[in-house]
Amino acid sequence: MDNHQRIQAFVTTLNARDWTAFGALLHENVLYEVPQTRELVRGREGYLDFNMTFPGDWSLKAVRVIADDLRGCAEITFLVSNQLMPAVAFFEFEAGLIVRITDYWPDSYEPPARTSQFVERLEPELAQRPA
Amino acid sequence: MDNHQRIQAFVTTLNARDWTAFGALLHENVLYEVPQTRELVRGREGYLDFNMTFPGDWSLKAVRVIADDLRGCAEITFLVSNQLMPAVAFFEFEAGLIVRITDYWPDSYEPPARTSQFVERLEPELAQRPA
Repeated sequence: MDNHQRIQAFVTTLNARDWTAFGALLHENVLYEVPQTRELVRGREGYLDFNMTFPGDWSLKAVRVIADDLRGCAEITFLVSNQLMPAVAFFEFEAGLIVRITDYWPDSYEPPARTSQFVERLEPELAQRPA
Repeated sequence: MDNHQRIQAFVTTLNARDWTAFGALLHENVLYEVPQTRELVRGREGYLDFNMTFPGDWSLKAVRVIADDLRGCAEITFLVSNQLMPAVAFFEFEAGLIVRITDYWPDSYEPPARTSQFVERLEPELAQRPA
């Protein structure tokens, strides 16, 4: 399994609540961090518990995964209590296991005023995001 | 130049306002999108103008860059009017040029209530983020 496949497996086993397979991807000393909230979870046991107790009804899928031999990242779409939420996760690996996860949850916001006349703004429907 | 180097050059030339070198990295039909605001800019001329007119006093540096032969992503720290703002950008390449940029600006927020006892919360000082 390469790091690209490990990230794909991270997403699919988490989505399946397959805690055995999910836990097998994690280093015992995995560090999980959310810079936006300054939350931090240290260690596999704690990170498993964090996910098992994650609030809401949720599912996820990877939109894209990019990885090299040491690190990787994924753009992920979460469906949380019927709301679509994008997430971006960075991964670091050690001895074939995920040793660090940096998680971002970018929420919608109103853009600042732009002086460029080249900026379009799409309708809220996600389907209108160009292919 | 490989895609990892192209992303590094994207960040350094943008930071330097070296619009000639920055523009040389971009495909004529580059598509820039911000899913959080639903903003969209089509084409090199427009994307250059968008950056030249970007509000505030800003500088940026790449925290990490991950790339393969087709795509890449970067975790970037922006300093905008003395405020540190993390950003994550995904890149797609065509014929050695950046053809699509998907930009995320994840702002700070208060986390939801957690039932796991394993979650720590760091003090606001960025310096306390563990190495």
